[in-house]
Amino acid sequence: MSQTSVSPPPQRKDEDHPWMELEQLLQGEDRQAVSEYLLSLGVEDQRRALSRLSADHQEETISLLPAEVAAEVISHLPEEQAADILEELAPEQAADIVEELPAKVSADLLQEMDTEDSEEILEEIENSEEAEDLRELARYDPESAGGLMVPDPISFPFDASIGTILREIGEKSELYSDRDVQYLYVTDKGGRLAGVLPLRNLVLSPRGRLAEEAMIPKPLSVQLDTSLDDLEDITDQKNYLALPVVDKQGTLRGIVTRSSIQEACADRQTDDYLASAGIIGGEELRSMPLFSRAIRRLTWLGPNIILNIIAASVIALNEDVLQSVIALAIFLPIVSDMSGCSGNQAVAVSIRELTLGILRPSEFIRVIWKEGLVGIINGIVLGIVLGSLATLYKGNIWLGLVIGSALALNTVLSVLLGGLVPLFLKKLKIDPALASAPILTTCTDMCGFFLVLNLAASVINKL
Amino acid sequence: MSQTSVSPPPQRKDEDHPWMELEQLLQGEDRQAVSEYLLSLGVEDQRRALSRLSADHQEETISLLPAEVAAEVISHLPEEQAADILEELAPEQAADIVEELPAKVSADLLQEMDTEDSEEILEEIENSEEAEDLRELARYDPESAGGLMVPDPISFPFDASIGTILREIGEKSELYSDRDVQYLYVTDKGGRLAGVLPLRNLVLSPRGRLAEEAMIPKPLSVQLDTSLDDLEDITDQKNYLALPVVDKQGTLRGIVTRSSIQEACADRQTDDYLASAGIIGGEELRSMPLFSRAIRRLTWLGPNIILNIIAASVIALNEDVLQSVIALAIFLPIVSDMSGCSGNQAVAVSIRELTLGILRPSEFIRVIWKEGLVGIINGIVLGIVLGSLATLYKGNIWLGLVIGSALALNTVLSVLLGGLVPLFLKKLKIDPALASAPILTTCTDMCGFFLVLNLAASVINKL
Repeated sequence: MSQTSVSPPPQRKDEDHPWMELEQLLQGEDRQAVSEYLLSLGVEDQRRALSRLSADHQEETISLLPAEVAAEVISHLPEEQAADILEELAPEQAADIVEELPAKVSADLLQEMDTEDSEEILEEIENSEEAEDLRELARYDPESAGGLMVPDPISFPFDASIGTILREIGEKSELYSDRDVQYLYVTDKGGRLAGVLPLRNLVLSPRGRLAEEAMIPKPLSVQLDTSLDDLEDITDQKNYLALPVVDKQGTLRGIVTRSSIQEACADRQTDDYLASAGIIGGEELRSMPLFSRAIRRLTWLGPNIILNIIAASVIALNEDVLQSVIALAIFLPIVSDMSGCSGNQAVAVSIRELTLGILRPSEFIRVIWKEGLVGIINGIVLGIVLGSLATLYKGNIWLGLVIGSALALNTVLSVLLGGLVPLFLKKLKIDPALASAPILTTCTDMCGFFLVLNLAASVINKL
Repeated sequence: MSQTSVSPPPQRKDEDHPWMELEQLLQGEDRQAVSEYLLSLGVEDQRRALSRLSADHQEETISLLPAEVAAEVISHLPEEQAADILEELAPEQAADIVEELPAKVSADLLQEMDTEDSEEILEEIENSEEAEDLRELARYDPESAGGLMVPDPISFPFDASIGTILREIGEKSELYSDRDVQYLYVTDKGGRLAGVLPLRNLVLSPRGRLAEEAMIPKPLSVQLDTSLDDLEDITDQKNYLALPVVDKQGTLRGIVTRSSIQEACADRQTDDYLASAGIIGGEELRSMPLFSRAIRRLTWLGPNIILNIIAASVIALNEDVLQSVIALAIFLPIVSDMSGCSGNQAVAVSIRELTLGILRPSEFIRVIWKEGLVGIINGIVLGIVLGSLATLYKGNIWLGLVIGSALALNTVLSVLLGGLVPLFLKKLKIDPALASAPILTTCTDMCGFFLVLNLAASVINKL
């Protein structure tokens, strides 16, 4: 708590254009002015201002700033963008900034870059030990304890006295000021994690007592490869602010904080949302280069057009039916689209239940039972509504029956499929948020077209 | 840190059915056994076991447990489910459980219930002051500092000595054991927030010094009605573990922790994802009653069927064109669906940029410019692909030109619309995640149908 203002959060002036101001300052090449102006902006305006500059200007701005300020600004940008800017800078300049960033942030950014670029930057880092640490951190899966941890937690040997520990913390308090020092850790003779010493215990223990007497022995710890899912379970279950991370030998390697776990979960939700809407391979920001944006979107649209053509081939196979009852063409897209909507609801519920851990990928029967019933009710309701409209439209009850029953049947089918597809995908280790909707839509389109056209064919004389 | 095991997170036996075991124990009505069994399960199995019981059995299980155990179990359930169970219990029983829960959790659950039910429970709470506090907490918007805060932070008057404070914390350490005690707060003569006293300062200050000398004065604080967006900005900007919440008079009312802010952001992401898939008004769990699930889903499907019919009416108006070139019917759903996909990508990017704060709802021009260019590139690529296929299908280049240019034009239109709709909705204070997709799909369907059929009509003699 070094801030000393009681002021409310930075106000948003809704019509200003901080990047214009910034571009003007850039022309003056006045380092001081650029730096001061950027720091005077709130985080959100910093982000907006930099996002609006061309890639060249972004690079120029950051390289004009002292490494410390640049690191501050960089750390507020979306990860993709921050990594892009660092890649563009001269490696020694990028290295200076990386050295100023917290190790965890640096590791995340290095992971985001091409291996070649990140290696160039790492080679420029003066402190070779720090570079090695970063290299190691960047190797861990970002959704594991190793990838989420802050390295080098503050630890003391088991035979240090409380007095010594208090003195040492006091002396190093500057060094520790940017850390969340809530728990200290105690190691045994072999350097393995032996206990945890909450600040509270430290405060309340006599100064002459030894660390091993004041500590809580055998604390809950996690492994370097413990997954985000498991970490989330633990934070759900226990109110810990931080968990120690140990390697296979039990040596303390870092701590993973509750808020970094929560943050990683929020990021994962965001990625799921973006993936389900067809933005794949990380975020897209409109400040990214035009062609890479277009190509990334096409990567998802390409397979989709193929799936769409497969689905529509069902119509091609039944052109004659359509030719004789042209009114069916009006209802084809309604039936397929409505079934798609119903199925997507079931997809969302399955994905959510999987995330909450109240549904396992093997529980098909439960999903079939629970979705089947909802599908039957909603299928009947929607079928009656659309069937009645179809009847009224051409004054032909047979048309209504065909359309109504096609929608009813297809609704049952799509909620079943929507409920089940995420389970199958999860079993196959494919991200359900990404792949469920395209698979579902293709199947429900095909079945919808098939049902409408074939039911119609069976009563073609009455239509 | 009271846990004393080094064990990895609870193992998942993938094929067990804890709810069957639980149902058997329920028949024995053996409180002790039910309670022990539930506590022996990991959080995830507790959730699954309870989710699978009928509402009656859920109620029975919880009412068999001692209030303390019931509170523990309830706190691990999804919020909707926990609130449902409490509503079903006798009010005095629910009140006992509510009293055992942390105030923040209780307030969230009470907020989830019908006012009548929550009032009945509050009236049964013995400590009337506690009930009043809960009533107040439940009044704040859950996405504001007031709704997210933990009330009653530990504070001391400005003239307390460090020694006194240390002694008092020591005496009350039991009471504080379930809190995140990282910062203590210091109040002035009028009871207003005057400073913050990190545990670190406490440890390092001479015992005779006064609180006001050891504290960091004028700390950053937030108001009861500070929004989640603003709280998120602050945590992005500053590495604080907790922020003090004050009322208009400056009186300290609670603290809002970094992790509760992160958690609320993750919840919001989840709601957005569910809403975008048509699960509205909170989560749906398959353990909820069948009819309420069916009706909630229909609430979203109902308006959708109307929108679909409006879109399809464009086909009805052009039946004659379709009648003469039946092949068009095959391409109608492909054109409308592909444009919908392209538009949804733009929706997701806009929603994301709005959330990140790098796009403001008034910046139409930027979105039109940035999306228009991507739309033109992708429209041309997709138009050429589908147009070529259409040409090959009937050996008629005019059909290819009609379909290709319809898709190209409609792609440009839908990415523009997809990019802009979330901005308009945000301006109108409507949740973009909920309403963007239906609006977009209806418009792109209509335009797609219109373009295909009218372009075809204009060259009808060549088809």
